[in-house]
Amino acid sequence: MNKYVNKKFSFIRIPSDEMKSEFYRILLKHGFSELRAEKCSEIFTLNSLEGVYSHGVNRFPRFVKNIREGYIKPNAIPAIVHRMGSLEQWNGNLGAGPLNAAFATDRVMEIASENGIGLIAMADTNHWMRGGTYGWQAARKGFVFIGWTNTCPNMPAWGATDPRLGNNPFVIAVPYQNEAIVLDFAMTQFSYGKMESFANEGKQLSYPGGFNKQGELTTNPSEILETWRALPIGYWKGAGLSLLLDILATILSAGLSTQEIGKNKTEYGVSQIFIAIDISRLKNFPAIGNSIQHIVDDYKKSQTENETTKIRYPGENVIDIRNANLKDGIPVDKSIWEKILSL
Amino acid sequence: MNKYVNKKFSFIRIPSDEMKSEFYRILLKHGFSELRAEKCSEIFTLNSLEGVYSHGVNRFPRFVKNIREGYIKPNAIPAIVHRMGSLEQWNGNLGAGPLNAAFATDRVMEIASENGIGLIAMADTNHWMRGGTYGWQAARKGFVFIGWTNTCPNMPAWGATDPRLGNNPFVIAVPYQNEAIVLDFAMTQFSYGKMESFANEGKQLSYPGGFNKQGELTTNPSEILETWRALPIGYWKGAGLSLLLDILATILSAGLSTQEIGKNKTEYGVSQIFIAIDISRLKNFPAIGNSIQHIVDDYKKSQTENETTKIRYPGENVIDIRNANLKDGIPVDKSIWEKILSL
Repeated sequence: MNKYVNKKFSFIRIPSDEMKSEFYRILLKHGFSELRAEKCSEIFTLNSLEGVYSHGVNRFPRFVKNIREGYIKPNAIPAIVHRMGSLEQWNGNLGAGPLNAAFATDRVMEIASENGIGLIAMADTNHWMRGGTYGWQAARKGFVFIGWTNTCPNMPAWGATDPRLGNNPFVIAVPYQNEAIVLDFAMTQFSYGKMESFANEGKQLSYPGGFNKQGELTTNPSEILETWRALPIGYWKGAGLSLLLDILATILSAGLSTQEIGKNKTEYGVSQIFIAIDISRLKNFPAIGNSIQHIVDDYKKSQTENETTKIRYPGENVIDIRNANLKDGIPVDKSIWEKILSL
Repeated sequence: MNKYVNKKFSFIRIPSDEMKSEFYRILLKHGFSELRAEKCSEIFTLNSLEGVYSHGVNRFPRFVKNIREGYIKPNAIPAIVHRMGSLEQWNGNLGAGPLNAAFATDRVMEIASENGIGLIAMADTNHWMRGGTYGWQAARKGFVFIGWTNTCPNMPAWGATDPRLGNNPFVIAVPYQNEAIVLDFAMTQFSYGKMESFANEGKQLSYPGGFNKQGELTTNPSEILETWRALPIGYWKGAGLSLLLDILATILSAGLSTQEIGKNKTEYGVSQIFIAIDISRLKNFPAIGNSIQHIVDDYKKSQTENETTKIRYPGENVIDIRNANLKDGIPVDKSIWEKILSL
């Protein structure tokens, strides 16, 4: 445990069962039904167990705050608005983002089972926390998953200085062995959360992550936090991808765009896309596991730039982190855990 | 015309009709049926007219070479392998990439018209030249388009020095006014073609585009051409996206992976994905044009970093280039055009 202690933070380790029980208690207290509290606490715990603390335990107090403020409706459930073959439009009715997203993922797998591919577009939903969660959910059941969400404006267009694009996280997942390969990335190179913690620790980013006041690329997170000009992945390419993902989420769901979300006091009522493909119905299904294995095996044979570099596929470290946290408990900053206990 | 003349290149301008006639003549001579020669010459001309010379006129001699070598079968047409609801698996039978891709795009729009969304995965096809072409094709008919192709290995995994990933171009297109917004990008930050021409002209890249021998990011294209370590967009993120796009193209089409394509002497027999969504069948269809317009209008209001910067949406410059080239003719290096005339 000592390795987690530093001057600013004091980490403790909480067993996942205990964490889940606390979340469950708090959600019940805030009006969630038992079943919904159970499922929602499970997702927040899983995100923490799998190492995405920023969208698990660390975010939980803010999630509760948003419930108290009325932005998240504890027992609102999604309603279908329109159905046309393999595509469905739903309204999330401002329910809990993780519950809406888990529901949409289950439903889109049903559509895919019937039609090969399915797409659900959901308007008026809320932050889904870790997008990868829904990739894992689908891929571990044998489905390909593609999904994304829009967000409030937090990234400038290429060549611009004011944020009008979202970082719109994008997820692709495929089944792999009994687990999954899950790519889950935002359109900004580094999250503001990461840049803030690097700035607090006086550390430089590993690679340029945004622009300073002089309009130059920099690895200094403090300079980027001054300008709020976070770097889009691939420069103009990531900015373009963000724009298109927002357009698609908005028009397919008939929901709010990044711009419209930005008019609200806080981020709520976002638009999301869920696509599933049932690979068990492909002609080559029996061989698909082998095909993926061949690709991964070749990828792993890469010559590394130095001896300590490991070539990992997206999501590979999740399994190790999950096992470690199951064994040792989930690391949480003591002050955050105390805050949660007081909720 | 003089502005195109420099020491190394001497550009002439060829009217698009004349260019198309030449392509048509050459394709007929190489065994294409009249209808197929017509369509294929149309696509090569359109790519040139719209400014993507690298995958239009400049690439045409290599296309003909690949036909002569037997990698591209002039009159092979795609065959359906498996159908399951909204998803179809096709085999491209090593036909001409642009013809196969244009066919798949038409067919996937039909599926989408019936089912809201459609997906076609095509194995054993060939280089589609400009991916954006199929985005324009679908979006100008009122469909959302998402598609990608795998390629031969030409980009290292993150932290690796040998190329095992493809640059796997990815396209998203949406209808916009009477035209389209079309995002079309490869997973490497800059193409090797671009880096070579910058190196020839002694110019630096606008932003870091790869690694030098010391393993440092550099804007010097010559140093990158020495290591062949082109930068994936978004560093590790683009490398991960390339891996997932290859896995999906391979397993959904039952086709060759990037690794397997790399075993061949030249790049052929690639795997491609075509997704279309029929937005005319959405509940909010009448308002979709307005929704997109609102997003673009806001995007255009961005504050620019300096007075000369223009905020453009992906594909915006295509319309200007098309109009200019229609008026003045398509700029072609004289030696390339002479080579084409001799084919």
